[in-house]
Amino acid sequence: MKQINRCAMPERLVKKSQKLKILTVNTPFVVWFTGLSGSGKSTLGVKLTDELLSQEVPAYHLDGDSLRTGLNYDLGFSREDRRENVRRAGEVAKILSDSGTNVIASFISPYAEDRLKVRKLFKPKQFVEVYLNCPLEICQKRDVKGLYRAAKHGKIKEFTGISQPYEKPKHAEIVLDTNQMNPDQCLKKIFAYLNSNYRL
Amino acid sequence: MKQINRCAMPERLVKKSQKLKILTVNTPFVVWFTGLSGSGKSTLGVKLTDELLSQEVPAYHLDGDSLRTGLNYDLGFSREDRRENVRRAGEVAKILSDSGTNVIASFISPYAEDRLKVRKLFKPKQFVEVYLNCPLEICQKRDVKGLYRAAKHGKIKEFTGISQPYEKPKHAEIVLDTNQMNPDQCLKKIFAYLNSNYRL
Repeated sequence: MKQINRCAMPERLVKKSQKLKILTVNTPFVVWFTGLSGSGKSTLGVKLTDELLSQEVPAYHLDGDSLRTGLNYDLGFSREDRRENVRRAGEVAKILSDSGTNVIASFISPYAEDRLKVRKLFKPKQFVEVYLNCPLEICQKRDVKGLYRAAKHGKIKEFTGISQPYEKPKHAEIVLDTNQMNPDQCLKKIFAYLNSNYRL
Repeated sequence: MKQINRCAMPERLVKKSQKLKILTVNTPFVVWFTGLSGSGKSTLGVKLTDELLSQEVPAYHLDGDSLRTGLNYDLGFSREDRRENVRRAGEVAKILSDSGTNVIASFISPYAEDRLKVRKLFKPKQFVEVYLNCPLEICQKRDVKGLYRAAKHGKIKEFTGISQPYEKPKHAEIVLDTNQMNPDQCLKKIFAYLNSNYRL
């Protein structure tokens, strides 16, 4: 239950402290990977983060699986919980971004509505949605975590692509066919985009 | 509802990416201000953050009021919601810290149990609990946000120090009598502590 007027905050003070004076590389960007389980979100997220850090660009990888062991440990996989999962991830990405760090986020984030809400937290060019387009059959074949098998055998009831929808992004800044491109090729495409929009 | 084994994560990958190679000033510290409403948490939090940034030390101010307009907008002030409020704040502080940023946190965080849980997220010397010790009467007199008045008139039902307890820290790293010291004197004491524990 929420009470009104308890959040009367020292708006001026907070804003002042959140306005970073140093260490900010232009406006930090948020690269948001979305796609089915097994489409390559974590793999590319780690690779991109490592590459940015090696270029001395401040970056942090926010991973869906990782967040579910901490901040989002209390959430499951129902429609409502997935909404809250992505909402919190977006808010954390915003905070990291405000702190001057570029954010690489890897979340299935299957619902267009939820992704749009995250996007709206940022300035127009700040949010870079990267759709990892990989056919379900290929993701099922990869099945790195054995989750598709578990879902097939009814051990997991709520699974994106099997028993729950994945709503493909219609206006993603970048689309990568991870079935046809290897990680390095994907990274090259992302860097081409970032380099034309940000000074890295 | 949570399902087991859905978080089977690429632990190695995530850890690798979270291990910052650059921009980390030793291990980032977390200065956690706790105290009654009106004890000076936000004021000192902003001042400390600004001072650190002016010294080119990466820092971010995580403010309770501010968080309640975003990540924690869904939480009220019951015992359970206060627990969750502080838990999420701690998890975000951990993420910021992992990203290489020193964190300044301003949260009433009235329950010792909740503060201890946050402390345990960090290495022993990383977490610096700062108790802003200010008599309730003084905080009531200040009443910058008019909340004590509202609480007195029954307009706010759950209010720390009035209708809910504040459990004073017994082992805070720093105790500041904000009734007797001005902000600059407080800051001096915090910097003395940080300088003896970290190379700023």
